[in-house]
Amino acid sequence: MSTTPLTVQEIYDLAYHCLISNGCDDANAAAAARTISAAERDGAVSHGLFRLPGYIKSLRSGKANGHAQPKIEHLTPAAIRLDGDNGYAPLAIEVGTPLLVDAAKKLGVAVLTIRNSFHFAALWPEVEGIAAHNLVGIACTVHTPMVAPFGAKKPFFSTNPIAFAYPRPGKNPYVFDMATAAKARGDIGVAARDGHELPLGVGLDADGNPTTDAKKVHQGGVILPFGGYKGSAIATMIELLAAGLVGDYFSYEAAEADNKDGGPARGGEFIMALSPEILAGFGWSDHSEDFLTRLENMDGIRLPGQRRFANRESDTPRQINATLVEQIKSFM
Amino acid sequence: MSTTPLTVQEIYDLAYHCLISNGCDDANAAAAARTISAAERDGAVSHGLFRLPGYIKSLRSGKANGHAQPKIEHLTPAAIRLDGDNGYAPLAIEVGTPLLVDAAKKLGVAVLTIRNSFHFAALWPEVEGIAAHNLVGIACTVHTPMVAPFGAKKPFFSTNPIAFAYPRPGKNPYVFDMATAAKARGDIGVAARDGHELPLGVGLDADGNPTTDAKKVHQGGVILPFGGYKGSAIATMIELLAAGLVGDYFSYEAAEADNKDGGPARGGEFIMALSPEILAGFGWSDHSEDFLTRLENMDGIRLPGQRRFANRESDTPRQINATLVEQIKSFM
Repeated sequence: MSTTPLTVQEIYDLAYHCLISNGCDDANAAAAARTISAAERDGAVSHGLFRLPGYIKSLRSGKANGHAQPKIEHLTPAAIRLDGDNGYAPLAIEVGTPLLVDAAKKLGVAVLTIRNSFHFAALWPEVEGIAAHNLVGIACTVHTPMVAPFGAKKPFFSTNPIAFAYPRPGKNPYVFDMATAAKARGDIGVAARDGHELPLGVGLDADGNPTTDAKKVHQGGVILPFGGYKGSAIATMIELLAAGLVGDYFSYEAAEADNKDGGPARGGEFIMALSPEILAGFGWSDHSEDFLTRLENMDGIRLPGQRRFANRESDTPRQINATLVEQIKSFM
Repeated sequence: MSTTPLTVQEIYDLAYHCLISNGCDDANAAAAARTISAAERDGAVSHGLFRLPGYIKSLRSGKANGHAQPKIEHLTPAAIRLDGDNGYAPLAIEVGTPLLVDAAKKLGVAVLTIRNSFHFAALWPEVEGIAAHNLVGIACTVHTPMVAPFGAKKPFFSTNPIAFAYPRPGKNPYVFDMATAAKARGDIGVAARDGHELPLGVGLDADGNPTTDAKKVHQGGVILPFGGYKGSAIATMIELLAAGLVGDYFSYEAAEADNKDGGPARGGEFIMALSPEILAGFGWSDHSEDFLTRLENMDGIRLPGQRRFANRESDTPRQINATLVEQIKSFM
């Protein structure tokens, strides 16, 4: 693969100007470009510039609003609703997070629900942004069906990701951000191309039978939730939190409403913050540090997110797929 | 197995009088007996009278306080802390739940943390009790280490259960209550006895190697989290919520502090309630009913908890292990 070296700032600039030249205003372009460049900074390339063509398609089709002005609704002192005005989620998250943080610091717990926005990124930016204020962050969202509930043979859930961050003052937080699908669709595609077998329980073939053949899962088959019926229960919970409690589309509704322009589908997001300072009280950090230090010192353990944190420290240019860079430039 | 038929009321009476004659006061005995008889009513026998000898051992050793008077602390309007006064969790839960429900109905979200109590039951009673008020309930707790984090070879997590209930007005809620261990210790014991193989990923042998031999897992081996590294992340989150955020023992602390009397270990519990009426607003129930109805109508799908709900409807006597009934009577 031919690559183009770009600094994180250059990645930001490329994304920003591409969004601006396709009709975004400054606020919307800057927020999305921050999210995209942060992903490339951390080596999370599947959520970096790779997503930009999808953003652009949804602007060009008129589905996404590049001039979105998120509207804040204080439902209660502990519950904030943000209408994304059909824009991209990064701006709504940037507007809503400070309000969520303030509420959780006062009340010990608070919820931010986001409606009418297009989420096309990872979830760690929101939960890490909350943990930076010494709060616990939890976030989840849904998109369109590609995962069969355990026992069923048809897609109904999206990959239904959930992210969690627990603050570690002076350190990077404990953080995970995971799909509840057994495997990412992209990874199954790679296994199919390379002739690799999948573990049993990752997918079904087109007839709904369990298979280890990646090709059969990839072509007409369906992905399963991680961890069998237990993972399927977690995926159900995520639909109910991110769509039911938020009052926006369940996965099947998002697919029905989408114009299939290749960009993200509209949907909601559920974000929560909790204060260990208030709930656990004095000494909370020493207590959880003892737990996390014991955990990370166990033989064979590597806490999630470590590769991203290590990448974050590097100030060398990132190597970006040259074809992708050319494609993005052609959109400008 | 020889059984003794007992009505749910007779089960309650047996548990109540056994607790009273071992030093519980009325409030503590009644709350624990309600939890035990509700489990037998629902056919959840592993959380029914089977647990009573453990309760009694912890009373007789002086570890558990049969006269506990839970103390309420209103940390904020959205956060209630309950000190269990070293009693059994059921009384603390009964005292705390109405306060949690009131707070969530006002603020949209609220948290109840329970400290210094002995949890020896399932988690569905608390989340179903919350869902009965048309609120979403989430609960989790930890006890003592018996599960190795993914990648490690030594026990560090307890079975770390999590329960979730989403209200369905006029119906039983959508509810799950699951350990994050790949399999219950009791089920592995049964497989070992009967010479059944375990799926790969359920446990390690005494040398820390993956095995499908139930005997090797049961005798000196260790259980793994469900769903590999993703389930292990969920188990970590539960330690951080139920111990870190609550300010009570992590699993390894609970084991260090326990007197090994065969009863439950002291610990904390994290309980949360959320209001779909406030967060999602008008129409929330029709919206989530459409999702849940589609899900339960899919071929091959059975929502969790259905067997318990069916058992609950029966007013015939429950068949209780006769040896267990005799053992309980010998404690009186």
